[in-house]
Amino acid sequence: MTGYFTEENSVDAVNCRMGDAASPRMQKVMTSLVRHLHDFVKDVELTQQEWEIAIDFLTRTGKTCTDTRQEYILLSDVLGLSMLIDAIGNRRPAGATENTVLGPFYVANAPVREKGESISLDGKGESCLFEGRVIDLDGNPVQGAMIDVWSDNADGFYDVQQPELQPKWNNRGRFVTDSDGAYSFVGIKPVSYPIPDDGPVGELLAALSRHPYRPAHMHFLVTASGHQKIVTHIFTGGDAYLESDAVFGVKSSLIADFERSEGLNKWHASFDFVMVPEDLSAPKASSAMDG
Amino acid sequence: MTGYFTEENSVDAVNCRMGDAASPRMQKVMTSLVRHLHDFVKDVELTQQEWEIAIDFLTRTGKTCTDTRQEYILLSDVLGLSMLIDAIGNRRPAGATENTVLGPFYVANAPVREKGESISLDGKGESCLFEGRVIDLDGNPVQGAMIDVWSDNADGFYDVQQPELQPKWNNRGRFVTDSDGAYSFVGIKPVSYPIPDDGPVGELLAALSRHPYRPAHMHFLVTASGHQKIVTHIFTGGDAYLESDAVFGVKSSLIADFERSEGLNKWHASFDFVMVPEDLSAPKASSAMDG
Repeated sequence: MTGYFTEENSVDAVNCRMGDAASPRMQKVMTSLVRHLHDFVKDVELTQQEWEIAIDFLTRTGKTCTDTRQEYILLSDVLGLSMLIDAIGNRRPAGATENTVLGPFYVANAPVREKGESISLDGKGESCLFEGRVIDLDGNPVQGAMIDVWSDNADGFYDVQQPELQPKWNNRGRFVTDSDGAYSFVGIKPVSYPIPDDGPVGELLAALSRHPYRPAHMHFLVTASGHQKIVTHIFTGGDAYLESDAVFGVKSSLIADFERSEGLNKWHASFDFVMVPEDLSAPKASSAMDG
Repeated sequence: MTGYFTEENSVDAVNCRMGDAASPRMQKVMTSLVRHLHDFVKDVELTQQEWEIAIDFLTRTGKTCTDTRQEYILLSDVLGLSMLIDAIGNRRPAGATENTVLGPFYVANAPVREKGESISLDGKGESCLFEGRVIDLDGNPVQGAMIDVWSDNADGFYDVQQPELQPKWNNRGRFVTDSDGAYSFVGIKPVSYPIPDDGPVGELLAALSRHPYRPAHMHFLVTASGHQKIVTHIFTGGDAYLESDAVFGVKSSLIADFERSEGLNKWHASFDFVMVPEDLSAPKASSAMDG
């Protein structure tokens, strides 16, 4: 390209500046990003004043991040970007368990517990037995799968959000499936909770007239040799926020019935996980893109 | 919309969540932003690992900002967004002086000096006489216009970047046009310099195989009652970086001849500014959008 930057040639003016020494992937990603960001600015004719508000918002979002809070991940979550990237990276055949967002509260290396043990250490909440099987696409049991689970407590907070109020590893644990691929553990019936909304992302949600709540869910990370990792939640059927999850994590296949069992004197939820072979090539994107 | 978030419906799933209480402009801007960001992610099939790199980059860009450094403005600059927003907000009829970026080094309330006075206080660099007129679209002089000028010193740094090495207000000053609309002052022949490249934006430029240099220029902020403000630079013709300004600020109409005058024992640059009435409605965008 020759000539200087103009409103009309702005995309090419920026993209033609990239040097050949940039990696092909870097060139592809940044060329597309520049094009879409410029198209956005032209589409809405963003004003100087709005740009100043955006610069301030992005700066404060960065400054809100700490060792225990990641406001940029939260921003990605509420704009649906985290779920979109997860969906693109984890396209699976029909019948396989679907992924959803990992969330910011995962902690590696939770205690490995025996089948049927409880993960609830603070005595709060309504007790719930979780059980089911891990199987492959043909229905065969996956023995020795590791099921890593975590949830908030009855007050709506994860242990890492309240290190001085909750026992360490409260509502977290790892379980190994038996020869039938079966797992079971006792936790609490999860409760819905707001994402942290006292920072820039909370301001954005308010400006968009959106609430910050997530429907109640139990997190699962399921791993087994030779199979693709499953990062997902089980949502409690009937939750008021199922159709308006602040981070768009709900998929209909992940909603489970939670039933009250008077025999157990507990709630009861059953959910099977269907794993996909590690070497199964990912299906292509649907042709029905809405872009 | 009914149903949950999917890869295919992702844009609508997010945008339909906005409440009616959000302002119409907020809805328009964010609806467009969500659409373009999702289109970008789908276009390049951004991976989880690339997303993590982006989250880290955006976080560090925020944390690099201080009272005297604005890394997000720099990011906007190197992606051509600052120039694009400036172009959209300052469409002017042919013959009027064009805008370019304000830049991060403007300081309000520089000393008002007499016509012909020098703004160079550190004795460095090659002396240069700047002169010209401020006129309107019909060629009539604009008397009493305020011309606010600033540049780097001969070492490539603005006074505010070196508060302990340079005199306060070095290479800055304000001048008022006379009854002919004329101005003149003595500064230095500006030199090219790199934008701050020791932070995340510098990393990005390196990954894109782009240099961080700006061609030499003198900043001008011209204001006069009843006329639209002009924020611009005069670039020195022949500079090696004119066609590769790191922030895309160059327009051909803003390049001036700098000539050596042996009579003055100085360089000499002449540039007239053509102002537009405040109430002139902005022309529409060109139909030749490249989006």
